[in-house]
Amino acid sequence: MEKYLLNLDEEMPKYLQISKHIEKLINEKKVKDGERLPAIRTLAKFLDVNTVTIVSAYKLLQQKGYALQKMGSGTYAKGKEERKNFLKQYSNIYKKVSGESLKGYIDFSGETTCSEFFPVETFKKVLNDVLDRDGAEAFVYQSAFGYEGLRKSINNHFWDKRIDTDNIMIVSGAQQGIDIVAKALINVNDNIAIEKPTYSGALNVFKGRRANIFEIDMLRDGIDIGAFKKILKKNKINCFYIMSYFQNPTGSTYSMQKKREILNLAEEYDFYILEDDYLSELIFDKDMEYKSFKSLDTNDRVIYVKSFSKIFLPGIRLGYLVSPYKFKDRIQSSKINTDITTSSLMQRALDLYIKEGYWKDHMKNLNEAYKERYNLMKNYIEEILKDKVEVNMPGGGLHFYLKISDKINVDCLELFYKCKKEKVIITPGVLFYKNNFDGEKYFRLGFSQTNVNDIEKGLNIINRILRSFTS
Amino acid sequence: MEKYLLNLDEEMPKYLQISKHIEKLINEKKVKDGERLPAIRTLAKFLDVNTVTIVSAYKLLQQKGYALQKMGSGTYAKGKEERKNFLKQYSNIYKKVSGESLKGYIDFSGETTCSEFFPVETFKKVLNDVLDRDGAEAFVYQSAFGYEGLRKSINNHFWDKRIDTDNIMIVSGAQQGIDIVAKALINVNDNIAIEKPTYSGALNVFKGRRANIFEIDMLRDGIDIGAFKKILKKNKINCFYIMSYFQNPTGSTYSMQKKREILNLAEEYDFYILEDDYLSELIFDKDMEYKSFKSLDTNDRVIYVKSFSKIFLPGIRLGYLVSPYKFKDRIQSSKINTDITTSSLMQRALDLYIKEGYWKDHMKNLNEAYKERYNLMKNYIEEILKDKVEVNMPGGGLHFYLKISDKINVDCLELFYKCKKEKVIITPGVLFYKNNFDGEKYFRLGFSQTNVNDIEKGLNIINRILRSFTS
Repeated sequence: MEKYLLNLDEEMPKYLQISKHIEKLINEKKVKDGERLPAIRTLAKFLDVNTVTIVSAYKLLQQKGYALQKMGSGTYAKGKEERKNFLKQYSNIYKKVSGESLKGYIDFSGETTCSEFFPVETFKKVLNDVLDRDGAEAFVYQSAFGYEGLRKSINNHFWDKRIDTDNIMIVSGAQQGIDIVAKALINVNDNIAIEKPTYSGALNVFKGRRANIFEIDMLRDGIDIGAFKKILKKNKINCFYIMSYFQNPTGSTYSMQKKREILNLAEEYDFYILEDDYLSELIFDKDMEYKSFKSLDTNDRVIYVKSFSKIFLPGIRLGYLVSPYKFKDRIQSSKINTDITTSSLMQRALDLYIKEGYWKDHMKNLNEAYKERYNLMKNYIEEILKDKVEVNMPGGGLHFYLKISDKINVDCLELFYKCKKEKVIITPGVLFYKNNFDGEKYFRLGFSQTNVNDIEKGLNIINRILRSFTS
Repeated sequence: MEKYLLNLDEEMPKYLQISKHIEKLINEKKVKDGERLPAIRTLAKFLDVNTVTIVSAYKLLQQKGYALQKMGSGTYAKGKEERKNFLKQYSNIYKKVSGESLKGYIDFSGETTCSEFFPVETFKKVLNDVLDRDGAEAFVYQSAFGYEGLRKSINNHFWDKRIDTDNIMIVSGAQQGIDIVAKALINVNDNIAIEKPTYSGALNVFKGRRANIFEIDMLRDGIDIGAFKKILKKNKINCFYIMSYFQNPTGSTYSMQKKREILNLAEEYDFYILEDDYLSELIFDKDMEYKSFKSLDTNDRVIYVKSFSKIFLPGIRLGYLVSPYKFKDRIQSSKINTDITTSSLMQRALDLYIKEGYWKDHMKNLNEAYKERYNLMKNYIEEILKDKVEVNMPGGGLHFYLKISDKINVDCLELFYKCKKEKVIITPGVLFYKNNFDGEKYFRLGFSQTNVNDIEKGLNIINRILRSFTS
């Protein structure tokens, strides 16, 4: 116990001093990876502090990735390399199984629509029509903003002509949209806000820009507005990245009231909203209506990013963004420096596909197919996993986000490994947090790639594994 | 003259002090935009220094964009906003004319093959074959490295299987290759070296990474190795961006000796070479052989980037890169964060196009067609523009880089404006330098979009305009 002894400074919160001291011990390998930290009562007595102080110190260590709590068994130290390896291990395993196209696996990690729903024949027809119509023109560079025909179709069919076509830019998928906007608007040490948890692809882009990232807890109907206000009062936030419908991973959707509040805050505190609208086509709950931040935005505060890949044909890499007038030129330059322009043939084909009415029909079919899977998932989770997880039903989209009950002594990575052994793939929660350890008790189940039979089978396997860890 | 008076400090080079003083006068608007600076002899006498000192000071001011020399008429100050507007004006005009597809213009600004050479029918056939063969598979996400079939074809057909297919990554054009590599390997304040002048698209990417950029003068057979060595001795360079054949804009090609010297320097000073091999298919000079840096690289020091867009179908946005084994994972993560993966259908179509032997045939045809244009350009430049420009004949590629003779009192932007009025589009040299003003006396003439008749007509117009400025 002696190494835990320290002179407490009156000026600084005690739990912070204790936590920092143990961090140091772990970094200097005086406490080794996997070593059990002293029991809470024992350490409290030894240091002559309240047990609550030790609980807080251990909690902070967990949040910072220096410790792992195992229910019923205590808190364990995590070494530096182990922390680093945490994600790497997962990513290597996932790469390996997905490289084998996940054949033979029940795949709950899917994020895009399933190939059985791809409208291959119709798209082929449309491609040929475009080539017959446009010839060599179809292979010339478009302007950096993209093919004008498609930009007009987007305005006509998805926005009732309510936005300025000049502000629409075609991008090679939503991920590129986020990357381009980040390069145009976010510089080293700029402050940006994100939802906690959030989409890891966006998180990585912001980290790559070396921005200061503020996480705001996601509640059932959008972020914790009170917490956001506190941050806004103290820090000049430039940009807030937001998923308005079926947030990835939580599945939460913003209430109309929160949308309006956030739009007002954007004006009051002079920040811009980067809205990633990625699955709003799949609303299954009859009481939900579709209103993007962009459609409510009267102050040109929203940069709207839309993926066509996730919902349509992932392999064609298409999406679009709507830029505030103010940033149009900067975002255009950023696109040019990123990849000059998006594939012209694909843009022309998608344009014709929308104009001919195929898009509308396809979305109707997708909605029916996925609503069936959604309801199955919902029912089975309620029946089979009841008592083992906490979950909010999203009401649409392609996934559920589950919190492992406190009674079950397993973290999401161990759950991932065990599931993988039984040929079931889940997505661990750690991917979705700036500090990976915050997601240790969460996992995501997507049903886009999982057919009706596999859903029941897969959930039964997960149930069995979770049960084996019940304390 | 009084405002030019200053107390010279013995410790600091005089030309530097004079130049800095005049900079300050211009920034404070005590010397106004467009105002003529004192004649060299007058100022030398007034400050009691050698005329060479004033010449050096004025030269530095020019390089930094604070002054413009008009031959035979003296040196003129340039205000801050005027310096900023310099490029903006050009880019707005160019956007405008190219938005109208340059119809009615003789376009010497082209960088990609002309649509009349696009193999539309063959590519359409190949697309349909792929869709019949692969169905929905053709629209599924590829791995971030790209479609394995295409990666193997690239190794088989372009590298005689001499590289490791695992190190090949498909990208959405060479611009994306540069962007991805930069995001993976270049951080804020890293030192990188570039050729002077260089491709503006790459320059913008490096500026966007906030790197320290060192320019090294391009000579006829590659960079000035002596100058490069001096930089290497004083600075830790991480990366050197290089165009091995028909460098853009100079048209220079590296000699075998310089390639080997640079590869040795890379090993000695521990830097990596980013080789952009963008037009090496178009070698017209019989004495030139093709040997990329990558093919000579025995120490895994070269990141090789290849565009298919420039030479084949610009609108399909395809290229590839070959990564050193060491950086494979980082570059893959960078690709995922940039746009996840490149269009799968296009990758499969290009693969089949190569496998069926169409690529080889197409390159043969392109070579013949462009060799004719190249020779025409070469002859006309020698005949028509003789005495008005200096030029090195590149021996291949799709452009010439011309230096306006000192006797002709015009900069490239004025030349651009005048040409544009007469429906001829050239590319001003200012685009290709970190400090735009270094390129004031240069312009680039590309012949990829210009047919045989237009070449003669266009060069005659340029000749007439240059003549009107002869002093």
